[in-house]
Amino acid sequence: MLENKTLGRSSISFGKPVIIKGSGSIVGQTEDEGPLKGCFDKVSDEKNDMFGADSWEKAESALQRKAIAITLEKTRLQAKDIRYLFAGDLLGQTIASSFGVIEYDIPYMGLYGACSTCGEALCLGSMTVAAGYADTVMCLTSSHYASAQKEFRYPLEYGGQRPLYASWTVTGSAGFVLQPDDMGADPDKAAKNNYSCKIGITGVTVGKIEDFGIKDSFNMGCAMAPAAAWTIAANLKDFGREASDYDAIFTGDLGNVGSDALYNLLGEENIDIRDRHYDCGMIIYDLKKQDVHAGGSGCGCSAVVLSAYILKKIESGEWKRVLFVPTGALLNKTSFNEGQNVPGIAHGVVIEKTE
Amino acid sequence: MLENKTLGRSSISFGKPVIIKGSGSIVGQTEDEGPLKGCFDKVSDEKNDMFGADSWEKAESALQRKAIAITLEKTRLQAKDIRYLFAGDLLGQTIASSFGVIEYDIPYMGLYGACSTCGEALCLGSMTVAAGYADTVMCLTSSHYASAQKEFRYPLEYGGQRPLYASWTVTGSAGFVLQPDDMGADPDKAAKNNYSCKIGITGVTVGKIEDFGIKDSFNMGCAMAPAAAWTIAANLKDFGREASDYDAIFTGDLGNVGSDALYNLLGEENIDIRDRHYDCGMIIYDLKKQDVHAGGSGCGCSAVVLSAYILKKIESGEWKRVLFVPTGALLNKTSFNEGQNVPGIAHGVVIEKTE
Repeated sequence: MLENKTLGRSSISFGKPVIIKGSGSIVGQTEDEGPLKGCFDKVSDEKNDMFGADSWEKAESALQRKAIAITLEKTRLQAKDIRYLFAGDLLGQTIASSFGVIEYDIPYMGLYGACSTCGEALCLGSMTVAAGYADTVMCLTSSHYASAQKEFRYPLEYGGQRPLYASWTVTGSAGFVLQPDDMGADPDKAAKNNYSCKIGITGVTVGKIEDFGIKDSFNMGCAMAPAAAWTIAANLKDFGREASDYDAIFTGDLGNVGSDALYNLLGEENIDIRDRHYDCGMIIYDLKKQDVHAGGSGCGCSAVVLSAYILKKIESGEWKRVLFVPTGALLNKTSFNEGQNVPGIAHGVVIEKTE
Repeated sequence: MLENKTLGRSSISFGKPVIIKGSGSIVGQTEDEGPLKGCFDKVSDEKNDMFGADSWEKAESALQRKAIAITLEKTRLQAKDIRYLFAGDLLGQTIASSFGVIEYDIPYMGLYGACSTCGEALCLGSMTVAAGYADTVMCLTSSHYASAQKEFRYPLEYGGQRPLYASWTVTGSAGFVLQPDDMGADPDKAAKNNYSCKIGITGVTVGKIEDFGIKDSFNMGCAMAPAAAWTIAANLKDFGREASDYDAIFTGDLGNVGSDALYNLLGEENIDIRDRHYDCGMIIYDLKKQDVHAGGSGCGCSAVVLSAYILKKIESGEWKRVLFVPTGALLNKTSFNEGQNVPGIAHGVVIEKTE
């Protein structure tokens, strides 16, 4: 059974796992003051997380640039070894990525899936490798607290108040190198495996947009919960699995309120994930001690948690199979101001210890 | 030779052509007053191109919604027959697509490649079909003159002046249905072929970002020319072709000035495409009679020209093989105001009459 197979409405099961050879993460100081302190590859050495840049947007591009450098260094690859780069971010016209990746000169596919972009990139990256279109791809996303506040709400300098149910955009970026299990004719090009075992992507479930009529752009957890519920339910059905076939099911950034909404929606389909559900946004910060309101969010949130936490738990053997479901809220300043709803989307990636 | 093959730095040659079964286009009134008058499937019936919406952004979403409807109708498919939708637009956080595609409930990959997005969507869509991940995908892009002016320059109501070398964003959207040549187990799901012959995508060349230091966001032709030159040169080299192996080479929206820059750059590599080069932005308007300055641009420009003009020329037998290279300029309001350069990207799609 080595053929890739399409399953159900939108899932694909890969005949051979697409191996996550390595990843690199970089975060701001707030992220390294939470429960994952010490787990990231690099942390900002400036209190303001400017990463040497002179604007918030350029700081986010610097984050991506550094995430690529760390990922290449850890996997002992050069930029020319990466055939395609799948990347995106939250800024208008995804400029953090455009200016972040440019100097590496890698053929580039720009993506926008809001905070689900890490899932979208891993779906397309693994599909590309499993199809034999590339022996090495990189998937990359970022977000920055200050650039996101300026993009979606108010520049920090305005000192705007935010409701307690608002999430805190993670300052961070992570890159992932994907390769086929068997490098075939080019074993010399194999990346260094950053793990003591093989960790692979064995399938994906592409999400669709779900709109439950949420109008409050601060309440992104509830806006995204229906999309997460659809993707998780579709994944279980398409792969013929129970929730218990996964050791952990991760959403991106639903927070407390959104997670409760997710449990309710899945409950209607007799699916109970509560004993194995984690939310990247609730893991990255200590919600009791850090003043981050409803938890973390952003394209960088699920990416750095995958790199710094989830993959290590899989490597350690604590989890054998994980369903990773980054969640995105689809809006911009104008759509919000014009009274449009905030729909959501979520893409599912099955990640397993494969030997 | 039925295997897909990777070529050179970023090209893929498909073992079997991915068939463009059909497409649908819709444009504003200005677009139907140019040389392609009467070639589009639908034209706005209101002078202000609002398409029944009450804001420019919603009008652009309406464009996408109608483009999907037209494309489904022409190919006699239903939304549920489309396995994946690859779509994007120029607005911040690609909201024209988010709100344009939502009601069709199709698993969705959001893309951002500026005005190259139609090329990016066709690359990913054809790669997905050629890999066997889907028997039917749709690729979709849009742009709207008024929403783009508001997004990148000034709302129309301000009456801002624009330099003569500025391009005019096309109001239009087009969708494309891609299927494998052989529908295998599901011949019943075959879309109606809108053409009297088979027209297929036989290969792609994924672009990379090129930055020649252009700072003037109105001068997008020159900003994009280096990326177009790279993609065209890479395509010819990777596929072992001369320019004369293509009957036509289309760029997206370089305009006069950008086209001259392209010829100069290709000349340095001893490539001469002048006798077979066309620019979608220069074809869609009559630059002498219509007050559109340097010609058309936007995600919708190359898409509607492909649907309404290029595919019909291939069907008629006038052209057998075309290289379609939508071009995008990577910037946003903030990057421009912060003094960043305007880099470009261009993705290449090889489209042929296959029997």
